[in-house]
Amino acid sequence: MDVKPDHRIGKNAMHLALFGPDEVNQEYIKDLRIQGFVFCQGKTGSMETNKIVAAIETAAKRNGVIENDVYRETHALYHAIMEALHGVTRGQVLLGTVLRSVGLSFSVVRGKPYQSDAEGEWIAVALYGTIGAPVKGAEHEAIGLGINHI
Amino acid sequence: MDVKPDHRIGKNAMHLALFGPDEVNQEYIKDLRIQGFVFCQGKTGSMETNKIVAAIETAAKRNGVIENDVYRETHALYHAIMEALHGVTRGQVLLGTVLRSVGLSFSVVRGKPYQSDAEGEWIAVALYGTIGAPVKGAEHEAIGLGINHI
Amino acid sequence: MDVKPDHRIGKNAMHLALFGPDEVNQEYIKDLRIQGFVFCQGKTGSMETNKIVAAIETAAKRNGVIENDVYRETHALYHAIMEALHGVTRGQVLLGTVLRSVGLSFSVVRGKPYQSDAEGEWIAVALYGTIGAPVKGAEHEAIGLGINHI
Amino acid sequence: MDVKPDHRIGKNAMHLALFGPDEVNQEYIKDLRIQGFVFCQGKTGSMETNKIVAAIETAAKRNGVIENDVYRETHALYHAIMEALHGVTRGQVLLGTVLRSVGLSFSVVRGKPYQSDAEGEWIAVALYGTIGAPVKGAEHEAIGLGINHI
Amino acid sequence: MDVKPDHRIGKNAMHLALFGPDEVNQEYIKDLRIQGFVFCQGKTGSMETNKIVAAIETAAKRNGVIENDVYRETHALYHAIMEALHGVTRGQVLLGTVLRSVGLSFSVVRGKPYQSDAEGEWIAVALYGTIGAPVKGAEHEAIGLGINHI
Amino acid sequence: MDVKPDHRIGKNAMHLALFGPDEVNQEYIKDLRIQGFVFCQGKTGSMETNKIVAAIETAAKRNGVIENDVYRETHALYHAIMEALHGVTRGQVLLGTVLRSVGLSFSVVRGKPYQSDAEGEWIAVALYGTIGAPVKGAEHEAIGLGINHI
Repeated sequence: MDVKPDHRIGKNAMHLALFGPDEVNQEYIKDLRIQGFVFCQGKTGSMETNKIVAAIETAAKRNGVIENDVYRETHALYHAIMEALHGVTRGQVLLGTVLRSVGLSFSVVRGKPYQSDAEGEWIAVALYGTIGAPVKGAEHEAIGLGINHI
Repeated sequence: MDVKPDHRIGKNAMHLALFGPDEVNQEYIKDLRIQGFVFCQGKTGSMETNKIVAAIETAAKRNGVIENDVYRETHALYHAIMEALHGVTRGQVLLGTVLRSVGLSFSVVRGKPYQSDAEGEWIAVALYGTIGAPVKGAEHEAIGLGINHI
Repeated sequence: MDVKPDHRIGKNAMHLALFGPDEVNQEYIKDLRIQGFVFCQGKTGSMETNKIVAAIETAAKRNGVIENDVYRETHALYHAIMEALHGVTRGQVLLGTVLRSVGLSFSVVRGKPYQSDAEGEWIAVALYGTIGAPVKGAEHEAIGLGINHI
Repeated sequence: MDVKPDHRIGKNAMHLALFGPDEVNQEYIKDLRIQGFVFCQGKTGSMETNKIVAAIETAAKRNGVIENDVYRETHALYHAIMEALHGVTRGQVLLGTVLRSVGLSFSVVRGKPYQSDAEGEWIAVALYGTIGAPVKGAEHEAIGLGINHI
Repeated sequence: MDVKPDHRIGKNAMHLALFGPDEVNQEYIKDLRIQGFVFCQGKTGSMETNKIVAAIETAAKRNGVIENDVYRETHALYHAIMEALHGVTRGQVLLGTVLRSVGLSFSVVRGKPYQSDAEGEWIAVALYGTIGAPVKGAEHEAIGLGINHI
Repeated sequence: MDVKPDHRIGKNAMHLALFGPDEVNQEYIKDLRIQGFVFCQGKTGSMETNKIVAAIETAAKRNGVIENDVYRETHALYHAIMEALHGVTRGQVLLGTVLRSVGLSFSVVRGKPYQSDAEGEWIAVALYGTIGAPVKGAEHEAIGLGINHI
């Protein structure tokens, strides 16, 4: 099955998260760039939600997906991260507080998913990994996607 | 990029939802069955959350993914659906009540994601589609995944 | 096992809800009155949360547990009901919207649970019953307790 | 006490909501325009959350605060409205579903609250009014503010 | 009033929590075992939600209510605990984070509440105690019940 | 624009919070006292929600807005604070846990907002300030109001 990126920013972001920086196909990466998307991939794991947020924000800034000193962009990314975390945590955006931990592959993708130029740029944050007790193997998969205009 | 199903039930379910009943590769479907997974795919759209829940439950029962008359199985599926809806709605599991609508491709996958036999069967519900105002085009993508033991 | 009411308003309210208007022991009822508690018991079932709220409010007013025309008392009761519903619904205070229904026995108890007179009167709402799919038998038990000063 | 608008978009929006279209001082309105803010004021009341959302969206579009056909702008406004509704509903974004109703004065303000041009335009939605039982007088005040980049 | 256990797993669990390990009648305990229920009782108190979760999990494992090394069983118990905590916390599953503390009596009961063998085993977690400011006496009662298939 | 306090306790509290202890007009303060309201104003900032709660409670007690040793009054205030925090946090009552911080001006106002004596005293907590990343400037305004009978 030959998977190619298209204008659907969320689907692309989820593809990057599902396969992670190690497994993702380089052809896919190249095609995504050709289509005008800017993005990064990474991995993070913690019992502290704030560390997950910080890891994604840092990766997005270091890789030029969002501008470092513009609050507007940080604000757009922050809300996309929080929305993605709702999918992972499913109810209360809490990890260690309720005795659970995550190990996540993430992606942040920025680009124009709509045909009309007036719709401008959007940002998607996708998360894929495991959530569970802080014990090896006592965990199942979790997924989240957050999308925002930027 | 050649995507194949493996023991990761959530990743498989999300793959089925991302590509939907129309786009999914038949090779992938066959491989998934060979690995012992039982599953179904479908599409549903509504402003009423209860209709989304009903559509997924009906599909899972009609396709033999869960047993019709065993409450235990309905209970496992119901919670997996609700968890997946948290990812799609990101905060309040409400659609029309807060003036928004979804159009979703979904999958329900059942099988054994863990090596140990003691872990038994699990069920995954994956959702992919769009959420937004009840106006064509005023919407963005949304994703959800719920996993439960069954 | 001989259960008697004491100053613990929440435990008393839960006892009334667990046994309901039909099963509760008349000795218990008498003892509760002797201790100065005012209360009512009832049953209600619906897929609509607002009907559950209305049934409890109406019972409390008709039985003189709260005063009819004092908003202050309605406000205290309303929040106690909402808190009890959190226990029953466990996440989203939604019933039919997420395709589920409840059948509940309830109690509303008013009195002085604290020794100090300055602590005044409090109100407790207890709920006990079943929650589940709108199909006979496809349900499990649920419990909620809300307590407020009045 | 002489209240004047300044760059704080949220404070300005809340001022407009607190005083409403009838009580607000025309001098304040003029000063707000001079500072470059675009805005509208209105009133809405309902037991249905979706009607509140629709009333605010319609007012913002009719008064040119957001562009009619650009989803990006509707998306920014929608999330600001939802955030403001969190302040009004304090927990569950539900009205009639939990047997309560609101009567609200609202404002939508658009402009540049930050000195740096890179921060661009933001939008603020402020709500002020009453929430309570659907009975005259059985209600207390409620306030909400939502802010988003646009 | 002579209270006896019956097939209602939630009611039984709540009875054990309401009376606690110290007050519960030994006849009740014996009857519960005769009916095939496996269970444990305990006490825990903390400002940290994760410690409450850990105390209940540990008690359930030590007393053989769930199997130590089977994630499936831990998963079922974890969700039942979280649901019970919703009843205790009524909105946000937070304790010390919002400056409050709990002192709880708990029970975990496992057995077959349904007549049909196909429904298998279920697990109930009941909590009863006090919640309030971390100051002696500044607290009121709280209750929670979570039920899950196992 | 000449703003004067009236019976609307929430509007008055919000006025005090919007202008803060430094900017508020002394005439307004005097008028508020004449109308029989007891109140305090203060400032607090933190990444820890519990510190915000504690700062407001301490101010209310030190300034005689609530009685020090009456749990009933602490309970009324606590819930008003939590409701106000819902407006500020808009979804999850979390600050540092999700990598954000607040700087708030607050007020606590106590008095009789209703004409009927039977409605007694009520308490309002208003919050106004900024919320955002723990980086100077990376923040926007936030508002919350909680009202309770006392």
